[in-house]
Amino acid sequence: MLALSTLHPQPRHRRHHQSDLNALFLCVSLFRLKDLEVPKLGDSDVHVKMLAAPINPADINMIQGTYPILSPLPAVGGNEGVGEVLEVGPRVMALKPGDWVIPADAGLGTWRTHGVFPEEMLLKVPSDIPVLCAATLSVNPCTAFRVLADFESLAPGDSVIQNAANSGVGQAVIQIARASGIKTINVVRDRPDLPKLVERLMALGADYIVTEEMLRKPEMKDIFKSIPRPRLALNCVGGKSTTDMLRHLQPKGTMVTYGGMAKQPVTVPVSAFIFRDVRLRGFWMTQWRKQHAQGEPELGHITPGDPLIRRGQLTAPACTQVHLQEYRAALDASMKPFISSKQILVL
Amino acid sequence: MLALSTLHPQPRHRRHHQSDLNALFLCVSLFRLKDLEVPKLGDSDVHVKMLAAPINPADINMIQGTYPILSPLPAVGGNEGVGEVLEVGPRVMALKPGDWVIPADAGLGTWRTHGVFPEEMLLKVPSDIPVLCAATLSVNPCTAFRVLADFESLAPGDSVIQNAANSGVGQAVIQIARASGIKTINVVRDRPDLPKLVERLMALGADYIVTEEMLRKPEMKDIFKSIPRPRLALNCVGGKSTTDMLRHLQPKGTMVTYGGMAKQPVTVPVSAFIFRDVRLRGFWMTQWRKQHAQGEPELGHITPGDPLIRRGQLTAPACTQVHLQEYRAALDASMKPFISSKQILVL
Repeated sequence: MLALSTLHPQPRHRRHHQSDLNALFLCVSLFRLKDLEVPKLGDSDVHVKMLAAPINPADINMIQGTYPILSPLPAVGGNEGVGEVLEVGPRVMALKPGDWVIPADAGLGTWRTHGVFPEEMLLKVPSDIPVLCAATLSVNPCTAFRVLADFESLAPGDSVIQNAANSGVGQAVIQIARASGIKTINVVRDRPDLPKLVERLMALGADYIVTEEMLRKPEMKDIFKSIPRPRLALNCVGGKSTTDMLRHLQPKGTMVTYGGMAKQPVTVPVSAFIFRDVRLRGFWMTQWRKQHAQGEPELGHITPGDPLIRRGQLTAPACTQVHLQEYRAALDASMKPFISSKQILVL
Repeated sequence: MLALSTLHPQPRHRRHHQSDLNALFLCVSLFRLKDLEVPKLGDSDVHVKMLAAPINPADINMIQGTYPILSPLPAVGGNEGVGEVLEVGPRVMALKPGDWVIPADAGLGTWRTHGVFPEEMLLKVPSDIPVLCAATLSVNPCTAFRVLADFESLAPGDSVIQNAANSGVGQAVIQIARASGIKTINVVRDRPDLPKLVERLMALGADYIVTEEMLRKPEMKDIFKSIPRPRLALNCVGGKSTTDMLRHLQPKGTMVTYGGMAKQPVTVPVSAFIFRDVRLRGFWMTQWRKQHAQGEPELGHITPGDPLIRRGQLTAPACTQVHLQEYRAALDASMKPFISSKQILVL
């Protein structure tokens, strides 16, 4: 099989702070397309032909060493994706050839053409949903669902503000909120093709789209003539943009941080805590899965056969499909700013 | 009666940012000791001879205009204190001459020798507890009690970390925690007379005392060989000291901000939210009282006859008693750094 794998145990400096350019160089230079032998199928193993796997920001962070998960090295990259079962060991009960599967947890190594995995590392998904939807199901839509559900109890007509609204999670938040009657205020960075982005997010169901600069303008008040101030803010950025977003939160509202794309900390005036009683929390899907392994719906309530997906109300984010052979271009594009499209490796 | 009152409706610039020196000048220059007429006693009024009233940081903030409460001006300063009832109107039921009373809420104006107040603005306290204890009861010990009780459920043997450990709230936290078997890690600023301060806080019941610099040293780990990492951090400072303190919090622990003495925001790395799931909250006693006006124990569970006070386990903070006539020196001292002693006006 072909796999996008790290060369060797990674150099020590992967835990050091890297400039983005160095990180990209390190990241691209660390990976090679290698032809690995497919291991022998054990009794409880499943032989999977991978179909598609996205490149997510967390994959890059894991390679950079800024993520608290370090796989044994050398390792195959990628944490999300969908594959088709080719063959199962004699003790595999829940899967059969032809089934579609996605990783049950982070760390599977999805950037490969074939893999042999223990059954418990896989989850079955329906094979009649769009392949890109299945490939991007286990991280972003589940994160979106949980951050919308777990911190504030929102009712139709309530509002949510989020930055990085164009990210995979951001797009899923827009769609899930729309399906629940919750209004979204979506913060994006200004960019040359802003009108195109606005059009695309509005088509997904976004109610308001503002740039980071607009967050600081008095005109923001006009929005709150039509909808209530948000009780929930979703932060995937950090730095000034986050402080500005927080200013629009209702008293006693909650801001949930699930990412830090700006690589800057969250800064909050003391008065927001004391006089407005804002609450700051964090969320990490990987941790949620660990704590809810037993007795909770898989995938964090977004079941693979979710009516939202079947009705087309929760779609895959905007994607660029790239052949595995062109992985360098895909890794490169995934680290560029203002790339509105998720890179998906076709396997 | 004599009262420490602002001269006139305060100039507009009191809402502007002030340097500390300007603020002090403004603060001292805005107040005059005035001989005011004691108003006629209404049917539901109580004539009180004030005994003692502290100068708290919040009093200074209100004068500077950095507090979201603006009294009608000119106003008598001071929000806390104890007085003795001299005379009551015919419809006053719960108070009689000789009783001791403290303000039921912020804004009473306690820096005066006499006052006539509606009965509902006063709370009766026992007249056999130390006068300094009664004078400092309604803000700091209650804040300390609530921040210890309302955010994490702590059991004997658990630990708490707090900065500004030498403040009025900080000293009450040490004493209440000690009485509950909760270990305290107390952060103070380095200063010339540090050993003396350490001795005093240890005598109150502090378990560990560290300077802000020590928070960044690997030796901090030694503390956590003897006691668990804190589930609760109490922040009255802001800035770098707060970020450093947060680093020692347990995963899923809570940091409560109730003050911002450094006049700097709270800055938190994104990773603390995502990977350590820390929770950030705020607390304001004035708001708590508003929301718990009905059916909750007065004073936030620290009853004036609290066994802690009667047993001497909750004492007044270190105080310097100053005669009202010397108010300039007292205001001056209350704004100086490293003054370990609360200024109390004797009335």
